[in-house]
Amino acid sequence: MSSGSIFVWEMLGTGILILLGAGVVANVVLKDTLGSGGGWLLINFGWGFAVFAGASIAAPSGAHINPAVTLGLAIADKTPWAQVPIYFAGQLVGAFLGAVLAWLAYKAQFDAHDDPAGTRGIFCTGPTIPKAGWNVVTEIIGTFVLVAWILLSPAAKEAEGGVPQLGNAALGYAAVAFLVVGIGASLGGPTGYAINPARDLGPRIAYAILPIRDKGSAEWGYSWVPVVGPLIGGALAALLYLVLPV
Amino acid sequence: MSSGSIFVWEMLGTGILILLGAGVVANVVLKDTLGSGGGWLLINFGWGFAVFAGASIAAPSGAHINPAVTLGLAIADKTPWAQVPIYFAGQLVGAFLGAVLAWLAYKAQFDAHDDPAGTRGIFCTGPTIPKAGWNVVTEIIGTFVLVAWILLSPAAKEAEGGVPQLGNAALGYAAVAFLVVGIGASLGGPTGYAINPARDLGPRIAYAILPIRDKGSAEWGYSWVPVVGPLIGGALAALLYLVLPV
Amino acid sequence: MSSGSIFVWEMLGTGILILLGAGVVANVVLKDTLGSGGGWLLINFGWGFAVFAGASIAAPSGAHINPAVTLGLAIADKTPWAQVPIYFAGQLVGAFLGAVLAWLAYKAQFDAHDDPAGTRGIFCTGPTIPKAGWNVVTEIIGTFVLVAWILLSPAAKEAEGGVPQLGNAALGYAAVAFLVVGIGASLGGPTGYAINPARDLGPRIAYAILPIRDKGSAEWGYSWVPVVGPLIGGALAALLYLVLPV
Amino acid sequence: MSSGSIFVWEMLGTGILILLGAGVVANVVLKDTLGSGGGWLLINFGWGFAVFAGASIAAPSGAHINPAVTLGLAIADKTPWAQVPIYFAGQLVGAFLGAVLAWLAYKAQFDAHDDPAGTRGIFCTGPTIPKAGWNVVTEIIGTFVLVAWILLSPAAKEAEGGVPQLGNAALGYAAVAFLVVGIGASLGGPTGYAINPARDLGPRIAYAILPIRDKGSAEWGYSWVPVVGPLIGGALAALLYLVLPV
Repeated sequence: MSSGSIFVWEMLGTGILILLGAGVVANVVLKDTLGSGGGWLLINFGWGFAVFAGASIAAPSGAHINPAVTLGLAIADKTPWAQVPIYFAGQLVGAFLGAVLAWLAYKAQFDAHDDPAGTRGIFCTGPTIPKAGWNVVTEIIGTFVLVAWILLSPAAKEAEGGVPQLGNAALGYAAVAFLVVGIGASLGGPTGYAINPARDLGPRIAYAILPIRDKGSAEWGYSWVPVVGPLIGGALAALLYLVLPV
Repeated sequence: MSSGSIFVWEMLGTGILILLGAGVVANVVLKDTLGSGGGWLLINFGWGFAVFAGASIAAPSGAHINPAVTLGLAIADKTPWAQVPIYFAGQLVGAFLGAVLAWLAYKAQFDAHDDPAGTRGIFCTGPTIPKAGWNVVTEIIGTFVLVAWILLSPAAKEAEGGVPQLGNAALGYAAVAFLVVGIGASLGGPTGYAINPARDLGPRIAYAILPIRDKGSAEWGYSWVPVVGPLIGGALAALLYLVLPV
Repeated sequence: MSSGSIFVWEMLGTGILILLGAGVVANVVLKDTLGSGGGWLLINFGWGFAVFAGASIAAPSGAHINPAVTLGLAIADKTPWAQVPIYFAGQLVGAFLGAVLAWLAYKAQFDAHDDPAGTRGIFCTGPTIPKAGWNVVTEIIGTFVLVAWILLSPAAKEAEGGVPQLGNAALGYAAVAFLVVGIGASLGGPTGYAINPARDLGPRIAYAILPIRDKGSAEWGYSWVPVVGPLIGGALAALLYLVLPV
Repeated sequence: MSSGSIFVWEMLGTGILILLGAGVVANVVLKDTLGSGGGWLLINFGWGFAVFAGASIAAPSGAHINPAVTLGLAIADKTPWAQVPIYFAGQLVGAFLGAVLAWLAYKAQFDAHDDPAGTRGIFCTGPTIPKAGWNVVTEIIGTFVLVAWILLSPAAKEAEGGVPQLGNAALGYAAVAFLVVGIGASLGGPTGYAINPARDLGPRIAYAILPIRDKGSAEWGYSWVPVVGPLIGGALAALLYLVLPV
């Protein structure tokens, strides 16, 4: 597959992921919405089905839509290292554009919202207790589960390789979606489960740039945690994969 | 397939969709029900499984059950333009009949309800903030995701073409259902996610005609938004499909 | 398949259905449980997964586990009329035994409960507004959707015929489970969605017989509604099936 | 498969199960988390998807990840008795390690929590009403449903035998996950549904050993119930399997 095609599919898939993912948080956080105050399980399912939608649209490029997955697959020798920067670029641009679309879908609600500081959480993650060391540990563990599962589970193999078969495709992407609902429900409590550097960095840039009414700080001081933690978690999962008798 | 058969299957499928979709909102909105006040996630799953039920019943006609899907498939050259009016007619009649059945299923609860204005929301959508321009944008974005996914995702291909295979059919329709749960959770906050002109217009006509106790206005002034927005969104998704290197 | 085998598998499947179905209501209704007050969506998913468990265990006999389904399949000429009484008997006995097991699983909580009248709802259904005519209409509509879907949907065909294939079986039963979650969410509000005569009558007999502490009336005056309504709904769905150009 | 491989895969799968399972309880129970107070359905889905993740990763060893399942499969002559101790050991060690990882993921939240007694429930189960006899009955019934379903359902057969096929694997593990969500929703109310001796004993040991701030008693007096009950339930299910005309 050409570099241009990888870029386009990863951009599309990650864009849909963030459009739906930021969207569900907007729905729960903003006050003039039908899902306002809808709770954590609504957010978990929203992000899970966002992964389902984004991953199945990005099927032609292997549906990484996450730099930690791309890194893990490269270490595991399943994605050429030369393609890694293309994947990263498509993912980051898509995440940025998805955040912009989510903002447009909720434009009237953003304009009417009365808690400017709260809107950053629609775009990017933040810790309930800001202790960078433990926050990184949480992100490492969550991403480790995601990437280990992608590498080890036979249920995930349909999503791999760029040419999923009809029928199996729905299964593979639904399986990843269920897994992400589970990681969010179980390991998302302390940091909001970035488990994906592009998922956090792209929307954070969008939050910094967009003319959002009365917006607050983009909290750049925390921004390295949801980038470094997931990359370490993905790499550790790939190393586990290489030593296991698969 | 004959025009008559297309009409019948689309009417049946859209009828089931609206019966279950309007039903879950009735269950949450009306006061003398077991699901009263049940929340947004209940509504999202109710509509998602409504899509699952309606689409799998309408399998013989390709399971459009949505004029925005029919329009997108026509632009993408997957449905003959001559059949488009038949699809539209079946969908609109089915949506009207489904709303009538939902009203009958909750007849005693409608008669006992004490907030007449609230019952319109059981039938058709309305914005939390009435700004027609942004409301159209929200409906465009939500429908774009739906139709783009149907056209692009390998997971959705089972639902296409009118002759789904056993086994794959359940997958394809479950996949669409999950997607619609996700769109509702993520993009339904501002306008109640019509993302389907028949879903809104048919029940709105039913609301205007039926002898519902103490009913309020059908809000015809807003009714063009959930028709025009979804049609634009479906058309844009088809145009994207045509330019992408699928 | 011998009559004895049909009886055993239907008894087992319906027993599991009611054990899990009555169990989730006990969990939500009784005060000394971890799910106390858990809400309608919890009940919907509990019953949906109860159908999944019961139907997949009853696969050898075709997984009817519901007299309205058996009647519909008989009218549609898919089950011999001579077997119908065997199916009914297995389903009723299983439903009774499942209710006894659910009571035993929650025995300590039943003994500690302080609202005797509320415990009948754990066993059998009741209307929020007791108007027998409309209550029957609601049960007819809900069961009609269930049986029509079983007869018409290609997604349900895996559950039919007694010899499901591996792989497809999980799909077919998951599909039925999703449908029942949807029917409960959407059409369960007025009467608690029996949509199955055995599901209501078996546990009602158990409630009348078991030495439940401080129990109230079994409300036999209502008991014909969740028997007659579902049978009419199943029959109407089968008639629709016979006239449609499938 | 070698004993070492069985040990490694069962340890990995059970570790992921407990990491995600204890994680979701931590998310709901601890006060400084995003899912704090999230409710029983969140816990049910969290544990269900934990089973999905753990079982699909442990596919090479047959994905028991539960001594009650191993015992049932041994009685049913599907697992050699000589391998049973290896399975048990891998499951117990994995459960212990998974609990340690869950504690690390929520370390900052554990340190900030203000109800020491409440944190034991994150690790191991306990009854709402401490009556050992009925608590054992509840655990027997819940585990009986699980193991009977695994032995009898065609939908579960994909998860059996150690060599699941692609495509079918996702189905089988998703099916088990749905079943466990259902058992939790329906039969988890009285005792917190251990239904797995390793799931309770491993984390209880971790709770007793780890330097958790202000921790309370590990309640060893109850610890035999979630070991003995599930083993009896699994054995009874296997005996049923042996006498049924499968």
